[in-house]
Amino acid sequence: MSKKYLIVGGVACGPKAAARLRRLDSEAEITIVEKGEIVSYGGCGMPYFISGDVKELKSLWTTTAGSIRDKDFFLNEKNIRVFDKTRAEMINRIEKKVEAIRLETGEKVEFSYDKLILAVGGNPAIPPIPGNHLKNIFKLSHPDDAAGIKSAADSKEIKSAVIIGGGLIGLEVTEALEKYGIKITIVEMQDRLLPKMLDKEMSVLLMKNLAKKGISISVSNKVLSFEGNADGNLTAVNTEQGTIPAELALIAVGVSPNKQLAEEAGLEITENGAIKVNEYLQTSDADIFAGGDCVDNLHLISGKRVYTPLGDLANIHGRIIANNICGKQEEFPGIFGTGVIRVLNNNVGFTGLTEEAAGNCGYDVVTVISPGSDRAHFYPGAGFIYTKLVGDQKTGRIIGAQIVGRGDVSKRINMLSAGMYNGLTADNLAVMDLAYAPPFAPALDNLITAANIMQNKLTGLAKTITAKEVKEKLDRKGNFILLDVRTPKEVARNSISYEKSENIPLANLRKDYGKINKNTEIVIYCAVGLRSYEAQLILEEKGFKKVKFLEGGILSWPY
Amino acid sequence: MSKKYLIVGGVACGPKAAARLRRLDSEAEITIVEKGEIVSYGGCGMPYFISGDVKELKSLWTTTAGSIRDKDFFLNEKNIRVFDKTRAEMINRIEKKVEAIRLETGEKVEFSYDKLILAVGGNPAIPPIPGNHLKNIFKLSHPDDAAGIKSAADSKEIKSAVIIGGGLIGLEVTEALEKYGIKITIVEMQDRLLPKMLDKEMSVLLMKNLAKKGISISVSNKVLSFEGNADGNLTAVNTEQGTIPAELALIAVGVSPNKQLAEEAGLEITENGAIKVNEYLQTSDADIFAGGDCVDNLHLISGKRVYTPLGDLANIHGRIIANNICGKQEEFPGIFGTGVIRVLNNNVGFTGLTEEAAGNCGYDVVTVISPGSDRAHFYPGAGFIYTKLVGDQKTGRIIGAQIVGRGDVSKRINMLSAGMYNGLTADNLAVMDLAYAPPFAPALDNLITAANIMQNKLTGLAKTITAKEVKEKLDRKGNFILLDVRTPKEVARNSISYEKSENIPLANLRKDYGKINKNTEIVIYCAVGLRSYEAQLILEEKGFKKVKFLEGGILSWPY
Repeated sequence: MSKKYLIVGGVACGPKAAARLRRLDSEAEITIVEKGEIVSYGGCGMPYFISGDVKELKSLWTTTAGSIRDKDFFLNEKNIRVFDKTRAEMINRIEKKVEAIRLETGEKVEFSYDKLILAVGGNPAIPPIPGNHLKNIFKLSHPDDAAGIKSAADSKEIKSAVIIGGGLIGLEVTEALEKYGIKITIVEMQDRLLPKMLDKEMSVLLMKNLAKKGISISVSNKVLSFEGNADGNLTAVNTEQGTIPAELALIAVGVSPNKQLAEEAGLEITENGAIKVNEYLQTSDADIFAGGDCVDNLHLISGKRVYTPLGDLANIHGRIIANNICGKQEEFPGIFGTGVIRVLNNNVGFTGLTEEAAGNCGYDVVTVISPGSDRAHFYPGAGFIYTKLVGDQKTGRIIGAQIVGRGDVSKRINMLSAGMYNGLTADNLAVMDLAYAPPFAPALDNLITAANIMQNKLTGLAKTITAKEVKEKLDRKGNFILLDVRTPKEVARNSISYEKSENIPLANLRKDYGKINKNTEIVIYCAVGLRSYEAQLILEEKGFKKVKFLEGGILSWPY
Repeated sequence: MSKKYLIVGGVACGPKAAARLRRLDSEAEITIVEKGEIVSYGGCGMPYFISGDVKELKSLWTTTAGSIRDKDFFLNEKNIRVFDKTRAEMINRIEKKVEAIRLETGEKVEFSYDKLILAVGGNPAIPPIPGNHLKNIFKLSHPDDAAGIKSAADSKEIKSAVIIGGGLIGLEVTEALEKYGIKITIVEMQDRLLPKMLDKEMSVLLMKNLAKKGISISVSNKVLSFEGNADGNLTAVNTEQGTIPAELALIAVGVSPNKQLAEEAGLEITENGAIKVNEYLQTSDADIFAGGDCVDNLHLISGKRVYTPLGDLANIHGRIIANNICGKQEEFPGIFGTGVIRVLNNNVGFTGLTEEAAGNCGYDVVTVISPGSDRAHFYPGAGFIYTKLVGDQKTGRIIGAQIVGRGDVSKRINMLSAGMYNGLTADNLAVMDLAYAPPFAPALDNLITAANIMQNKLTGLAKTITAKEVKEKLDRKGNFILLDVRTPKEVARNSISYEKSENIPLANLRKDYGKINKNTEIVIYCAVGLRSYEAQLILEEKGFKKVKFLEGGILSWPY
């Protein structure tokens, strides 16, 4: 007899699992139950509909060949039945049935299953802020939300907007609304944007660039209430740090796994509040699988389970679940939390642990910040990027990376992610055979340069000090010399203001080093960190003992 | 006493080794001997000077901070002596000396060494074609060549040009000259462009695109002679397939290692005619190291030594040589022949073995061709790319890849290269945590999709036939049905012309399959290969036994 495969959730993981099930089992009865009207859509595309980059919302659920992925499509092309506007209410694990309700009619329906897949996604957190019933306060978790935001932006009545939450969704919508000329303020509770993905100094680089584009950023701040007018329209957002006039607000403070159905059925739930699954994406009931935004994932560096609701993982999960159901046993190994985002000409990529997270996990961390062009610097249009590597002093392994800048970030992040599955070390990275041509990369890729710096730090050759440490020294007015080894022309452009500053261009250092007191602590800097590194070596040769250079040079100086 | 490190060759590997030596040994006497006038230049940038993308030739030897990397720069910033316009003539290994000649004065000079580095590069092959003394016949191996080509192109006297050799340099110069409106013909002896990097069908995709841009391509052809006028100017190129009028010709038929100095000194030479080095880049004389374009490299898939003169490898070599000289033992593991090139809006990337080369190495090869957008297909500006993976049937390992198209190729090639160091399999690739956002990638990256197809082929689920095999069947007028499962609208746009063609859209196949004779051989196709794969599975379920689908669909059809 043919098997019955029932899938609750029709967005990403669910339809992917269904399609793969069909390919592996031509006779099975495959059913998708989805509470919404739209199925199989690219939710990550919603900010680009708001921005106008994507012209039609329905292109998010259209195939490359131009077919709409609706009920009929699934039935005719894939022989998969879709029950839309149908909400699953209860799993009867004993009888292997799911009770559901047709939302339009209120009719109860029942689906029996041999195997059940929970692909029920996540819920955006909506904090109980007074006034959040006012018009033009949005979340972004469904195409209807995207349509609402776009319609408000198109109305030209929105002069100012507040984005509550400086995470991925908040920043993508910031980019979208900026295109309408709307004045935007981002309010973030933590001390920086993308606090889970970026260490402070990398986030500051991003924040500086966004500020230049006119975005107001209010960190370590909290929204207290929304204010409206007599028509029920939003007029302002009250925060701990003051009132911000705004006709539109987006609440994007996080997403949590949709666990209710599973929890009520007695399935195990993890510490992250997600449906617990093993490496085969099987729940605590062997006949029920779960994937996508309702589960958490094993982080391959920290060894902890983490909640990373991302569309690409949901699709991979879907396929693996189908494989396991059909006897093609396959493990999902886990994740590095790899991701990328574009916000107003800044690309931000991240993988593995931040320095902060690695420290919390007990790693003896060694870091590198290396700024540079993303292609041959003489090639026009080269984009500058700042690469931070987080390494483990004990093993030389690269356990995390963050890259921020105008240039090609996603290429480097993917390469690191691919390498990290096999314990990529700085030594491995330094000798990699990569695709070089001037329009695509510098002769030594940014990652190879960063790996070389890490090798130098691991072996004690390069002695660096971070921007944060230098800033603290400056604020303390410590007794040290700041030595700039750039050319006078460069110094005239910008320099770090400090009383005990010296400028000796690297080319003169071998003859002029005597001008500097050998016994004082010296912090050297240049543009990116190369000349200051050479200066450190020269001064050491001349008998200086307390010499360090500013990692990443003045170009990475975030203050 | 301080060590004497002598470096012959001042372009890429040599200066890199010298700079690293200085950082590791502050007291050493470091000397570079270079026959030309320019040192430490980015030779790979020359085509982009010709094209006008790079405005000044000297930016190829200018640092990011704007300093010219000349003799003074090396002396002042790095305490490295450079003898330019000085040709090394003889190595006296017994006395550890190199005899050289100052080219301007004819003066003989002698340099003693503790360690010698040969970074003498490669020589462009110049076949003895009659007439090759005529004006405006160029090679491209030195900035002077680039200046000569640009000056000719700028003169507006060049209406037509012949590029002899369809390798990397030939194609990059094709792109550059096309910008001047010059009519270009590429003459290549092999049956395709980039014959070492691309299999036939991938090369044909490239050739089709170049032909659309007005480039004439003459493959399996050979230049016989050059014709000139009374002024000694080139007027035409005679080939086996006819005469091509041309006022400019570029000879770019390959590069060979510059081995003469080493060979005369009795150093071992490899089968490739390169200076033989071990994994530490040490020659058969323990005090002499060599790197860059004068050595060959271990290919990590074939296990053979191959000649791959590339700028990024030269730089990596330089650093490793310096490390080994200074007692920081480091191996150069080898290469995959990874590279990328842009030619007239086509990006071409390659790594590992081609299908052809893998077959020659005895692999039981499984291949995948997967066409698709390089980012979410709904995202504007998505570029189409064709990904070919070459796998090993026995281990499931990915042993090579070629990607061609308008979209982001270098990202994917680098990721594969990074993974291949650890024996990347299709199974590994299929579950990778990659950076996804609509402006950068599809939710399932092209590589993951290609890996999924390879898994399906390895397990026998997907039964494919290549474009080449279908073409042969068509030419033989074999007894088979060509079944197009696209929509009528798509069929109207383009289809493969064949008498026994049927069109049943996938959505109708489950009810209309009876129209097709079950006992005939059936080749299914669609746009990219997904629907035809599903059609294969449907027909098999209905009892069809002889069903295959066209790999990569009609979009990858090169004929």
